[in-house]
Amino acid sequence: MKIERPKQQEVSDWYIQTAKKAQLFDYGPARGTIVIRPYGYAIWELIQQILDPMIKSLGCQNVYFPSLIPESLLSKEKEHVEGFSPECAVVTYAGGEKLEEPLIVRPTSETIMYSLFAKWITSWRDLPLRINQWCNVVRWELRPFPFLRTIEFLWHEAHTAHRTKEESDQQVLEALHMYKRFFEETLAIPVVIGKKTEREKFAGALYSTSCEALLIDGKGLQIATAHNLGQNFSKPFNITFQDVDGERKYVWQTSWGVSTRVIGGLILTHGDKKGLIFPPKIAPIQTIIIPIWKTNDEYKAVIEMCNQILSQLKSSGIRAELDISDHTPGWKFNEWELKGVPVRIEIGPKEVKESKSILARRDSGEKRVVSSKELISKVKELFAEIQKDLFQRAVDFVKANTSEAKNFNEFVEILENKRGFIKAPWCGDSECERLIKEKTKATTRCIPFDADEARGNCIYCGRPAKFIPIWARAH
Amino acid sequence: MKIERPKQQEVSDWYIQTAKKAQLFDYGPARGTIVIRPYGYAIWELIQQILDPMIKSLGCQNVYFPSLIPESLLSKEKEHVEGFSPECAVVTYAGGEKLEEPLIVRPTSETIMYSLFAKWITSWRDLPLRINQWCNVVRWELRPFPFLRTIEFLWHEAHTAHRTKEESDQQVLEALHMYKRFFEETLAIPVVIGKKTEREKFAGALYSTSCEALLIDGKGLQIATAHNLGQNFSKPFNITFQDVDGERKYVWQTSWGVSTRVIGGLILTHGDKKGLIFPPKIAPIQTIIIPIWKTNDEYKAVIEMCNQILSQLKSSGIRAELDISDHTPGWKFNEWELKGVPVRIEIGPKEVKESKSILARRDSGEKRVVSSKELISKVKELFAEIQKDLFQRAVDFVKANTSEAKNFNEFVEILENKRGFIKAPWCGDSECERLIKEKTKATTRCIPFDADEARGNCIYCGRPAKFIPIWARAH
Repeated sequence: MKIERPKQQEVSDWYIQTAKKAQLFDYGPARGTIVIRPYGYAIWELIQQILDPMIKSLGCQNVYFPSLIPESLLSKEKEHVEGFSPECAVVTYAGGEKLEEPLIVRPTSETIMYSLFAKWITSWRDLPLRINQWCNVVRWELRPFPFLRTIEFLWHEAHTAHRTKEESDQQVLEALHMYKRFFEETLAIPVVIGKKTEREKFAGALYSTSCEALLIDGKGLQIATAHNLGQNFSKPFNITFQDVDGERKYVWQTSWGVSTRVIGGLILTHGDKKGLIFPPKIAPIQTIIIPIWKTNDEYKAVIEMCNQILSQLKSSGIRAELDISDHTPGWKFNEWELKGVPVRIEIGPKEVKESKSILARRDSGEKRVVSSKELISKVKELFAEIQKDLFQRAVDFVKANTSEAKNFNEFVEILENKRGFIKAPWCGDSECERLIKEKTKATTRCIPFDADEARGNCIYCGRPAKFIPIWARAH
Repeated sequence: MKIERPKQQEVSDWYIQTAKKAQLFDYGPARGTIVIRPYGYAIWELIQQILDPMIKSLGCQNVYFPSLIPESLLSKEKEHVEGFSPECAVVTYAGGEKLEEPLIVRPTSETIMYSLFAKWITSWRDLPLRINQWCNVVRWELRPFPFLRTIEFLWHEAHTAHRTKEESDQQVLEALHMYKRFFEETLAIPVVIGKKTEREKFAGALYSTSCEALLIDGKGLQIATAHNLGQNFSKPFNITFQDVDGERKYVWQTSWGVSTRVIGGLILTHGDKKGLIFPPKIAPIQTIIIPIWKTNDEYKAVIEMCNQILSQLKSSGIRAELDISDHTPGWKFNEWELKGVPVRIEIGPKEVKESKSILARRDSGEKRVVSSKELISKVKELFAEIQKDLFQRAVDFVKANTSEAKNFNEFVEILENKRGFIKAPWCGDSECERLIKEKTKATTRCIPFDADEARGNCIYCGRPAKFIPIWARAH
């Protein structure tokens, strides 16, 4: 099975054109904003349907906090405000008057949430507290790019508070592993999990962890994050509890989230030159039925069978549609290939006569003929095969595009010729990390939990290596 | 079955205290904002779960548009901007710089959506276009009140475009009837449907229709609206299509929505002095199990049976919980009555021995004993009874609190002594309507579709009446 991908340097144009033509998005009137159109939003709805119960099974309850954060609240944690203030949108007028205190449109909700945690938590009995919110956030990106970096995006943000550091460490890991399972099993996107470096961590966190994907343009994508905030917020926000031993202590906190940027990750993991390719589990339309006919008599019989199959598929819980538009079958094939529908069902006079259907795979083009009797089971089988194959192909891609560099020359050469993930030794000094970024635009994605034991010397300064992070140019 | 309600003049305090104690909401840090806490947000999630498929069955597809609207867009429809600009929150700084053009945090999305409709619609084949969005909106309310009037609230807003006026009229009615069905069948809130007067219509609409509820404080609540926007937006936004006859025409549009204010309407329809009362269909927790024991031996047997019942209820799709906290049964009874859980299940040593449960209704206090074998069917029966009774009680309340006034004196007297809905004749002149509001704080809620034929004289000016609207002081 061979997929023809756009060339690395063509990916960016291909991405915009394909996603726009497939009507996943359109540009909004304000700079850097996008409209998520029905076909794109359907993906987000499926993500919510699948991820929300997973988040709840970790003990979270959904809530809604205001989107407008008083400036003084945002400023309570020093690193946090320094990290976010360059990206803030600020409401200065409201109700026709200048506000006494400006309000920040939430770039993330730590500060507004924790101002209330301080009120809600008084005893160890109130812990752990776990809440989650599905909402929009605004960050003033300098170089917006549809889905991957937009001025406004949708996400879920979970926030938890715990008695001990151990519990909060555990919570971060549980969240991260939940994400990994979701990405790999549902979106068929393989991810590397690991710890962010000090330089790359969330503003205000004790440490951050992340899921890192590698896209077909050879760039990395941080596709989910889970932060241990330590007591960095509980101290300025005075979130304390009386512990079992009677002592008053500060809580340990975590926050973690996934945003609509995963839709970009999805497109840039599975697409090919013909357009999008969606794994069946997340495809808004899993199968499209194309009727093929010449005469009026044929038309009647073909459409009748198509409608039968459509209702059969739907009542089996399959997201199916029938294309009865005026276009030619060839036009329809192209259209639904562009839109990434995993399985096409072709029904012509021959199929009607023999009571069977032609199933065509979007990813490989492979066709198989199945009898009407076994259609549903065969379609479901095919979905499972496609899901598995897409994941395996993505795993193979990451493997083929993960390199090792022993020194700076090798590092630069890989970045110039191949891109991808690079495992390269590093001394652990933030200054080396900064200089490597300055010279190559590559950053540490994470230090994988299953990283090789550090050996060799830092590719930049030559001192003994402390870590073997994964490096990449990233979105 | 008798329910003891708070007195009319005590309702406001009762509302705030009860909703806060029951942890439906807390106040946000910025003026007029609230945090919707898990128990309150669970109601919104249920509303979304039930209403979203109903909206989709009317042909809508979900989308997401940016929340920040360039000021120039909002200003394109004159009445619309005049209506909304006093309520707007304005972003003037972003990314550390003053914006060239201020951005309005959406108070509603007509203008930003329609700027793209103009691009998406070119032919009659693109019509009808029907989209829907679940999101937050911001309106700078002068007198905020939790759920009913908050600076920020959540809602769904559906927007449709049609070939003809008839189709758009039809769409408005379909939406309104869908809402009525939802309110009455799911929330057990009876509503009057009808047309708004010119004075009370949506800013920019050709005409508006609404669902109007009557709350236990004797005040009206506009609980849903559906607007026919005519061509008022399609002209300034230049949304045209080539019709079947080849001519280029402006589309006819509608918009309709329901917001988190319905949670306020729910509380203020069914509550009593002990706290909230939720109809089973919308109750976040439908039944609470309370174990009752004295000795350790009893404890073991009781908890075992409680857990069995809990898992039995849950696997039957019932939203059940078991309260194993340290509190006394009496404390728990009060707590879950406050929280409005429709059915309490009491399990003590006697119940264990005889393999039965005590079911207690939150609304009437009535208790019945059922055998374990028939527990599930009896609980479901009870839910249906409670749902029906709550609706009937609300219907009776509206009936008992709907009066007729033939002249201004009668009108004022009803408002002073009884409040409620008042059917009173009106000449149709906006100036009379304005003066009546100025003198009595009562407004027309709507002219019901099933209103009595106009007779008598306008209660204000004495001219012959054209309409018999429903009047009320309203939230």
